[in-house]
Amino acid sequence: MTRVYNFSAGPAVLPLSVLDRARDEMTDYQGSGMSVMEMSHRSSVYSAIIAEAEALLRQLLTIPDNYRVLLLQGGASLQFSMVPMNLITAPGQQADYIITGVWAQKAAAEARKHATVRVAASSEVVRFCRIPRQQELDLSPAAVYVHMTSNNTVVGTEYDYLPDTGPVPLVADMSSNILSRPIDVSRYGLIYAGAQKNLGPSGVTLVIVRDDLLGRVGQLPIMLDYQVQAEHGSMLNTPPTYAIYILKLVLEWVRDQGGVAVMEQRNIRKAARLYQAIDSSAFYRCPTEVASRSRMNVPFTLTDETLTPRFLAEAGQAGLVTLEGHRLVGGLRASIYNAMPEEGVAALIHFMHDFARRYG
Amino acid sequence: MTRVYNFSAGPAVLPLSVLDRARDEMTDYQGSGMSVMEMSHRSSVYSAIIAEAEALLRQLLTIPDNYRVLLLQGGASLQFSMVPMNLITAPGQQADYIITGVWAQKAAAEARKHATVRVAASSEVVRFCRIPRQQELDLSPAAVYVHMTSNNTVVGTEYDYLPDTGPVPLVADMSSNILSRPIDVSRYGLIYAGAQKNLGPSGVTLVIVRDDLLGRVGQLPIMLDYQVQAEHGSMLNTPPTYAIYILKLVLEWVRDQGGVAVMEQRNIRKAARLYQAIDSSAFYRCPTEVASRSRMNVPFTLTDETLTPRFLAEAGQAGLVTLEGHRLVGGLRASIYNAMPEEGVAALIHFMHDFARRYG
Repeated sequence: MTRVYNFSAGPAVLPLSVLDRARDEMTDYQGSGMSVMEMSHRSSVYSAIIAEAEALLRQLLTIPDNYRVLLLQGGASLQFSMVPMNLITAPGQQADYIITGVWAQKAAAEARKHATVRVAASSEVVRFCRIPRQQELDLSPAAVYVHMTSNNTVVGTEYDYLPDTGPVPLVADMSSNILSRPIDVSRYGLIYAGAQKNLGPSGVTLVIVRDDLLGRVGQLPIMLDYQVQAEHGSMLNTPPTYAIYILKLVLEWVRDQGGVAVMEQRNIRKAARLYQAIDSSAFYRCPTEVASRSRMNVPFTLTDETLTPRFLAEAGQAGLVTLEGHRLVGGLRASIYNAMPEEGVAALIHFMHDFARRYG
Repeated sequence: MTRVYNFSAGPAVLPLSVLDRARDEMTDYQGSGMSVMEMSHRSSVYSAIIAEAEALLRQLLTIPDNYRVLLLQGGASLQFSMVPMNLITAPGQQADYIITGVWAQKAAAEARKHATVRVAASSEVVRFCRIPRQQELDLSPAAVYVHMTSNNTVVGTEYDYLPDTGPVPLVADMSSNILSRPIDVSRYGLIYAGAQKNLGPSGVTLVIVRDDLLGRVGQLPIMLDYQVQAEHGSMLNTPPTYAIYILKLVLEWVRDQGGVAVMEQRNIRKAARLYQAIDSSAFYRCPTEVASRSRMNVPFTLTDETLTPRFLAEAGQAGLVTLEGHRLVGGLRASIYNAMPEEGVAALIHFMHDFARRYG
């Protein structure tokens, strides 16, 4: 069995120890005589798994008691709709969106079906290569909420500050950098994240929502109603049981590694080394503004773009895979989430040096 | 490793060969050097998995070309809302619901948020112990669709006929008996099913929808729009990749066993033997009408209900687990989906005889 270094933007690499454990427990979870996949979600064995997942999230992210933790389905894309459906209580109400990439655009497009969307700032004119600063944000006190995308996978940008929205609740799509650095949950109204980058496999979506934002709208479809989901402890219907089990294993791994602060230190080191390798060579280029660079997704191009297919092919032979840039922008991209070991980044840098030496 | 016979109503037993395969491929799927869980859903390796899952569904269920096959998230409960959201084009339009149990009631309750729901028939007055016959159905030609629940897990009933709805599209929740018997898809407008009984793990939902029912309503949230999901081949956003992989393995198992017709013959034998064991003993009772009995979920009670906890405890010691009745009705229930081997039903019957002999 040869494992590769997988730089996929998501679904993404998982800790090998998590996969080993899942493999070992596949046909008999802790003496139950069955797989977690086969278990009634109402069983005591499974109830302990989902309760532990929530407890670990609360511990690792220091989630205050007045926030509910929901494990839902549908990915961030369904949250693009659920957020306005749950927070906008009357037609014509405003929501402010900070547009930092294609995912923020998609979120705003869905919100327009329910709210009057104001663009508080957009970096589209510079192809999203930077994050607007606080002083560039045109925020309205009339907004019901402000929406941001904390990390942008396609272009590789990430907020290095937390927007001050005053009394207006801040809603953040953290799909691609949650658990990668400590956050102050109390400064957000709502946080959501598809799991398939830093949390676990695709198919489960984390929502952290402040109590006072629940129950504002009546007659929503029950599956789309945060209040109803919270009342049922994410068990309104059968949850994605196996994905939540893997999430729990990933959370245990983060805890055992030392928690989110340790993740952040590693992520700072990994990103710094990779950007340094790019910036120090005339052979490679990174299009993003230095202050806006993502620690999670590192896009780069070859100065001679005709060499890109060869780079991908030879990298693949060296066990460095899924380095293609997003189909919207092309080029190359290395996603280096929590579970990408420092050795993987070192191997990529070694390959990049070698490739530049041979073709530069 | 000791495997039990798991009679859970869902999530439910999976074929051991499927779990063995998933275990063996956990850290390296077919030489890719990564788990299916870690794979980009846009990769060629993963694209082949989801394409094969759809092809197998089309083959096993003989799905006509004018039907789209969607693999979504949210379970049947989200379909309770998506069906009316996609089919009802104007306020006040009617939908007819056949109420055969709690799941049908929940479906109707969600539909009432979007449509005028007419109850075409209900067996609630007899505690849902039977399925209304065709001549009892009060169907309206003005209905946009008729909704049925083909198998009812809580009370253990199942249609043994297909309602004739004339030109009005028939919508069926087949969560708990899909793939257990051949069906004529062309007689339905739309079929949906949560996977966690006969299809695979929880977290993926199958929708089979006739082309002409797509695209009737504009401005739906994209994740809830069948038309948009169909245009994107269930890849509008990251699908529940691992659940779909397990689904594919289960479908291969059904094919290798001989297909749905072979499943049906086994299910007929398993159910006949278990009902016979109940009916032939004064010690056990089954509350459902004989003609309406489910092949999938067999509820029963002990004539002396004070013995129920002892029955469950001793069954558990004998490796026969998750036999508790649904919390709404109590008693006992054996769910015997496709993946429950005939030996498991024989072991349960043997235990029931022995228990009755000792305590009867």
